[in-house]
Amino acid sequence: MAVRLARRAAEQPASPIRRLAPFAAEARRSGRHVFQLNIGQPDIPAPREVLERLQTFDQPNVAYGPSEGLPEFIEAVREYYDSLGLTYRTEELFATTGGSEALLFTLAAIADHGDDVLVFEPFYTNYSGFAAMVGVRTRPITTYAEDGYHLPDVGTIERQIGPKTRAILLCSPNNPTGTVYGDEELEAVGDVCRRHQLYLVADEVYREFTYDGAKHRSAATLEGLDRQIVLTDSLSKRVSLCGARVGWIASKNAEFMDAVLRFGQARLCPPTLGQHVGAVFNRIGGDYMASVVTEYERRRNLVFEALDAMPGVLVRRPQGAFYMCAKLPVDDAQKFAEFLLRDFEVDNETVMLAPADGFYATPGAGVDEARIAYVLNTDELARAMNVIRAALEAYPGTTRSG
Amino acid sequence: MAVRLARRAAEQPASPIRRLAPFAAEARRSGRHVFQLNIGQPDIPAPREVLERLQTFDQPNVAYGPSEGLPEFIEAVREYYDSLGLTYRTEELFATTGGSEALLFTLAAIADHGDDVLVFEPFYTNYSGFAAMVGVRTRPITTYAEDGYHLPDVGTIERQIGPKTRAILLCSPNNPTGTVYGDEELEAVGDVCRRHQLYLVADEVYREFTYDGAKHRSAATLEGLDRQIVLTDSLSKRVSLCGARVGWIASKNAEFMDAVLRFGQARLCPPTLGQHVGAVFNRIGGDYMASVVTEYERRRNLVFEALDAMPGVLVRRPQGAFYMCAKLPVDDAQKFAEFLLRDFEVDNETVMLAPADGFYATPGAGVDEARIAYVLNTDELARAMNVIRAALEAYPGTTRSG
Repeated sequence: MAVRLARRAAEQPASPIRRLAPFAAEARRSGRHVFQLNIGQPDIPAPREVLERLQTFDQPNVAYGPSEGLPEFIEAVREYYDSLGLTYRTEELFATTGGSEALLFTLAAIADHGDDVLVFEPFYTNYSGFAAMVGVRTRPITTYAEDGYHLPDVGTIERQIGPKTRAILLCSPNNPTGTVYGDEELEAVGDVCRRHQLYLVADEVYREFTYDGAKHRSAATLEGLDRQIVLTDSLSKRVSLCGARVGWIASKNAEFMDAVLRFGQARLCPPTLGQHVGAVFNRIGGDYMASVVTEYERRRNLVFEALDAMPGVLVRRPQGAFYMCAKLPVDDAQKFAEFLLRDFEVDNETVMLAPADGFYATPGAGVDEARIAYVLNTDELARAMNVIRAALEAYPGTTRSG
Repeated sequence: MAVRLARRAAEQPASPIRRLAPFAAEARRSGRHVFQLNIGQPDIPAPREVLERLQTFDQPNVAYGPSEGLPEFIEAVREYYDSLGLTYRTEELFATTGGSEALLFTLAAIADHGDDVLVFEPFYTNYSGFAAMVGVRTRPITTYAEDGYHLPDVGTIERQIGPKTRAILLCSPNNPTGTVYGDEELEAVGDVCRRHQLYLVADEVYREFTYDGAKHRSAATLEGLDRQIVLTDSLSKRVSLCGARVGWIASKNAEFMDAVLRFGQARLCPPTLGQHVGAVFNRIGGDYMASVVTEYERRRNLVFEALDAMPGVLVRRPQGAFYMCAKLPVDDAQKFAEFLLRDFEVDNETVMLAPADGFYATPGAGVDEARIAYVLNTDELARAMNVIRAALEAYPGTTRSG
């Protein structure tokens, strides 16, 4: 007899974003450059105002802050929403250790062990991780590459609601697909939540990242759902502070916020340094965001056009975030990704992709899809696309005829 | 019908360390100074080397680091353990968002929903919070003020082991009691874990904080328990970086560490800034820790002697950490703590205590005890003790005869 791990540990998925890391390390050791399109780590510099804040930390030590966040950070979030036309009071905002903790606390507060939440797949893979940690099941509703990963009709959504369904999780602009849901889709999801008394957990961390003039509408604008809507949000992508681990929860449900506070008290406080640095995020110049979005739109165009031109690749032009999913003419995107890292290079360069199967909860779904994060400059992206194009020709497991 | 919260939310305890915060805020609004003895937020400055690292962050943005921690931080932890005679390899260390996350991940990995872990009460209250979040029960074994909160005999411990018991949680030097367990106690707990195939989760974040020449012995020195011992650790107290949220897990059980990695991947990475700043913690001059410990010993003496001299107060001289628990001659320490904040002052100053009932899992236990964190300078502590002494005389709910 020996100590054993919890079943929960076996059920905890490995991250498809990070599980190829050993292969990438090996590729680097063998002297190849790896374009990292697997993870949403932007190369974009943080705004000057934010980085300068690092130098202004003048405390004798790094102390605990309030569990709900530093007052100046919460005030910055409140003002930021205000500028978007979303009105939240201080006590309706709660700072978290990144969007990750916002999702973990939200799931923990609204769903018990054995309950489930609806998610549209492919979905941000770590939803599964947070859910598994607190014993909550994700119930997938599939969206399809052919439809640009837009939502299915209301009937299809409602058929998935079971007796233990507590919420719909919605991410727009979407990670991993880049899809921005339209008014009709948002209203439809709101109606379902209203009719079935479900929480609507809206992950809107890519709110500003929209292209082709598309406008993101926040779930918080839906009428009559104040008790049901929870926004999870983060500074990570907005101002390139991924590693600062600063996010938040916004909700007008006082009882829910009280539960979140108690979860938050257990971990004492979110990171003080990240909040200190991030507390000026709402005061950065408007051109910063505009130039960032212009740059991403350029990258999106390049990557979309390159992929679209590759024989056998199916991709729709996404309108937001900085990801897209593509159906590849391969037997297995995981194997193709390993092939890229182990057996392939163009001018000593190769690419790291995130196989999309890990973004699906339905077994076997997405096996020939990959997520591409266009977080490098256009020159590097062009070379990366060239690597993928050539690799698809060389890969032995191709499904392309002829 | 309306949306409802998870039962888990109702079961999540409010922190006894922080639940008096509204009363303290009110006291401050009314112009009184509040000595915060409720929370382990040291006033001690961080080492110069650590604070200076803030200025050396020269990246264009704050990027995600590896899920398992920045290599330079992990290396610092490895070297630190090495200097203590504890040998860990890089892959046996995992950086976390404070000791809090180290405990959360550890519980999640070793215990399923409905399982339980043994804890000696009074215990660090947030153990309950992390356990509740992942559906694990804490099974208390009471220790007593009269015994200086030392451990009961092996039979008493073994009687508490049930079919779903997975681990013993041990904190030494102890929060909240300040007790440092001796060799015999540690060996006895190790034997129990060996015989019953339990994990031994050792929270050793106060390792260096020992007085009267007492030496802390790490659980990691116990023989033949490599697969069962998990250390949870943190920089928070050691170098006054509480708000940086940097901690770690150390374990030689590869399967356990693999599960921890998967939990960790879901939340991407621990705070980059905190790790960057903390990565020099093992290179600070030896006098820093020595002078900090000397200062705490002086404070411990002052607080212990003051409490010991108050009629009706029961307290034993603790040998570590920077807390002590005291039995007070009051009907209810929560009410007494509220009385201090609402109705009492000496020269416009009052005290915030942590009522100890929240540090017990046994209902009704600890109702007349409080935890005192001696994290202020001796002058302030002397005034705070004077407030407590006078308040015990004025408090209407006294149980002191005569």
